[in-house]
Amino acid sequence: MTSKPYAIIAGVGAGTGAAVARRFAKQYPVALLARSPDFSHKLAAEIEAEGGTAVSYKVDVANEEDMERVFGEIKDHFGSTCAAAVFNASSRPFPKPFLWQTQGDMDHALNITLHGAYLFAKLTLPLLLNAKGEEALVPTLLYTGATAGVKANAWLQPFAVSKHALRALVLALADEFAPQGVHVAHAIIDGVIRMPLTWVLKPLSSWHAKLDPTAIADSYWHLHQQPLAHSTAEIALRPFCETW
Amino acid sequence: MTSKPYAIIAGVGAGTGAAVARRFAKQYPVALLARSPDFSHKLAAEIEAEGGTAVSYKVDVANEEDMERVFGEIKDHFGSTCAAAVFNASSRPFPKPFLWQTQGDMDHALNITLHGAYLFAKLTLPLLLNAKGEEALVPTLLYTGATAGVKANAWLQPFAVSKHALRALVLALADEFAPQGVHVAHAIIDGVIRMPLTWVLKPLSSWHAKLDPTAIADSYWHLHQQPLAHSTAEIALRPFCETW
Amino acid sequence: MTSKPYAIIAGVGAGTGAAVARRFAKQYPVALLARSPDFSHKLAAEIEAEGGTAVSYKVDVANEEDMERVFGEIKDHFGSTCAAAVFNASSRPFPKPFLWQTQGDMDHALNITLHGAYLFAKLTLPLLLNAKGEEALVPTLLYTGATAGVKANAWLQPFAVSKHALRALVLALADEFAPQGVHVAHAIIDGVIRMPLTWVLKPLSSWHAKLDPTAIADSYWHLHQQPLAHSTAEIALRPFCETW
Amino acid sequence: MTSKPYAIIAGVGAGTGAAVARRFAKQYPVALLARSPDFSHKLAAEIEAEGGTAVSYKVDVANEEDMERVFGEIKDHFGSTCAAAVFNASSRPFPKPFLWQTQGDMDHALNITLHGAYLFAKLTLPLLLNAKGEEALVPTLLYTGATAGVKANAWLQPFAVSKHALRALVLALADEFAPQGVHVAHAIIDGVIRMPLTWVLKPLSSWHAKLDPTAIADSYWHLHQQPLAHSTAEIALRPFCETW
Repeated sequence: MTSKPYAIIAGVGAGTGAAVARRFAKQYPVALLARSPDFSHKLAAEIEAEGGTAVSYKVDVANEEDMERVFGEIKDHFGSTCAAAVFNASSRPFPKPFLWQTQGDMDHALNITLHGAYLFAKLTLPLLLNAKGEEALVPTLLYTGATAGVKANAWLQPFAVSKHALRALVLALADEFAPQGVHVAHAIIDGVIRMPLTWVLKPLSSWHAKLDPTAIADSYWHLHQQPLAHSTAEIALRPFCETW
Repeated sequence: MTSKPYAIIAGVGAGTGAAVARRFAKQYPVALLARSPDFSHKLAAEIEAEGGTAVSYKVDVANEEDMERVFGEIKDHFGSTCAAAVFNASSRPFPKPFLWQTQGDMDHALNITLHGAYLFAKLTLPLLLNAKGEEALVPTLLYTGATAGVKANAWLQPFAVSKHALRALVLALADEFAPQGVHVAHAIIDGVIRMPLTWVLKPLSSWHAKLDPTAIADSYWHLHQQPLAHSTAEIALRPFCETW
Repeated sequence: MTSKPYAIIAGVGAGTGAAVARRFAKQYPVALLARSPDFSHKLAAEIEAEGGTAVSYKVDVANEEDMERVFGEIKDHFGSTCAAAVFNASSRPFPKPFLWQTQGDMDHALNITLHGAYLFAKLTLPLLLNAKGEEALVPTLLYTGATAGVKANAWLQPFAVSKHALRALVLALADEFAPQGVHVAHAIIDGVIRMPLTWVLKPLSSWHAKLDPTAIADSYWHLHQQPLAHSTAEIALRPFCETW
Repeated sequence: MTSKPYAIIAGVGAGTGAAVARRFAKQYPVALLARSPDFSHKLAAEIEAEGGTAVSYKVDVANEEDMERVFGEIKDHFGSTCAAAVFNASSRPFPKPFLWQTQGDMDHALNITLHGAYLFAKLTLPLLLNAKGEEALVPTLLYTGATAGVKANAWLQPFAVSKHALRALVLALADEFAPQGVHVAHAIIDGVIRMPLTWVLKPLSSWHAKLDPTAIADSYWHLHQQPLAHSTAEIALRPFCETW
């Protein structure tokens, strides 16, 4: 067990999650949370091979019992002083006419995006509050949102509802915890994230219009570096080709 | 059973719900939905005494089985052509520090505000779509929202999350159903509604700054009168003394 | 000279201006302001023929001296108690790459849209404040804005700048004069207004998607009818086919 | 004359302007524009003393002839390839009841904030477009805005109008020039900037709630480092104690 401040990244897939994990691992030991741990286990090994410290945990972010178990393990291993926590898990949009949507569609979206985000806040905020005394460090809780958090379109009710709900949760947390010394922020990420799968699906010509996860990670790191008296509660990162 | 278009008002309490019911009852038979039916039963009797047609139904808007039962009764009684449906049910805000809030607080807010609104849309939209052929009538689905649907404050995560989620649902429905001939709209109502209970709680001097439910009902009626090519998807009704 | 409250409509062309003039003329004597008075003179004659009271004035709304002269005439004729004032004048958007735009393009847009609106506020607010004592009347100052007041697009800098500036002016006036008893509001009108010229230019099939100026006028009248404790400071009136 | 990319900072006073100049001078030669050149001359000397390259120019940003003269001098000295341009000039808010405001108040605000910003865009964009071929460089045009650009309050019509107008100009430029390879962005800066004058005026206790100009400069530099496919068009930097 160590008392060094560490970072927790939830939703570590091949895109934004991995880039954020690598970026924060340059400075902190990192705990990586993923539902399907194959990728995050490999990533943790790579970070360790490059001289960093990383442990991968298999967890369903929307399962309270599972999350409590994993956070118990994280505290046993890394201690109780968290410098930064990033929530990057999300449901995917499945466009469907409203009258064909089911309660299950709505529950699925809310479960991962909102309930997972809520559990993450409940479990990380006490650890982030512990980091307040640390020199030159503003403990930071970041959430990855989407344009659907500010714009609601036909056929996408479950996705839009869950992303608006997430945004409300995060901005209310930002309002509440800034005076207590924790920087909470919401990032509106949009466009297709540039990763192997999307490379296959999309014509090469639009490659440069895709978001680079490394650049997103740099922006998250920049938010973490901001002094509290200068805390951006929301940032939008959009490729210029997005039409909205 | 009648084939005349009618209106459905959900959440009929002594404030906005009653005023909206009275306003729409001037033109349509009205079905009144309320969890505690004492008030709405009395209101229905008053409307009938004044020459209107009104039936009060006891229902938990967040209970799917209950809602399906009541809508079966409504269709048996009023038929399948709905001119206007207004959802006015809501949880109340209970300010509490985030770390003291429970999953139950969040579920309670989402259950009434979002899940009830979702069930109401599922059950009324088919009836509203039936009214499209009617002369000089734009079928209308209205939801009462709050400033918490566009602004998220500390200590009010459950309320803000549920109101943001409601707004996303309604604006996505507006986007989807306008091309199909149904006007869906979200009203941002704020300030203390002027009714007996608030009259007691608040100093008389600020009485005139309170929202008049009759004026809200007039605005809802105005939205219902708008031609579809001119459909306001969102309206804010705020007393000037609101500081935000 | 009469002491009866009256309405002033600026920017009376064949679309929104004419419809607003006809609507307010049902209740009030109306003063019609237009740069090219042929249409407004004819409209005033029609209103008089139908039993109303209307006088048409030729004026450049952006010319301070001209406006002061005309308001002198209005006061001589109608008195100093104005019930409602509607500003409907606007520059038109001329899309052009920014580096080809000139200072003249920007000045032209600002001159009509912002400077005209400013002069109109300066000259009408004292007359509106005089109407405060009147029974059952909330004096109202309305401005017609556009989506360009909330969204700024490439090639349209002068139009977007002038419409954002107008919106700021109106919302700041709303904030300032509501406590003094005057309802000030901004309407975001969009889509092609339905009138003879656009009828020729546009395919018939999209006719129903165009805004009906009569419906806009009804919404303006509804805003004027709102009690002050229930004053909508901004309303958006958009046809559903608008993609924004 | 050099062909190395350089930066231009307009509005170099003791707060944000100075911090931005120092930050960009770590990477680029900098041209500093100020109306009162005493401070910026001294700053240029300090930057030179620390090994950087800086030239201070006295100019009224709202005077077209003056601006053209100075940009001629800049091109003679630094060449025609600009990496980054930051516009930081602004009028100050002078709260005053609307009916006491004069056309001069409005003109003064628009002149510096909007007209200066327009001239700056006209003169820097051709130089920024020249930098497109440069390795690992996204030419960047940044403007300092204010919360008054998104919120219009009583008594502050000239300030709010000019800041809304500025924001519309910048967001329309962002929309137009991103596809051409230039990142244009608007920063909503708020709160009292921390500098000697405000230190005297404000109680010491709130010192830490003030914005740190160095932190603002870091955020501006971060925006300049973003890849174009990941360009934030607007960022808000607010101390948590701002009530808005």
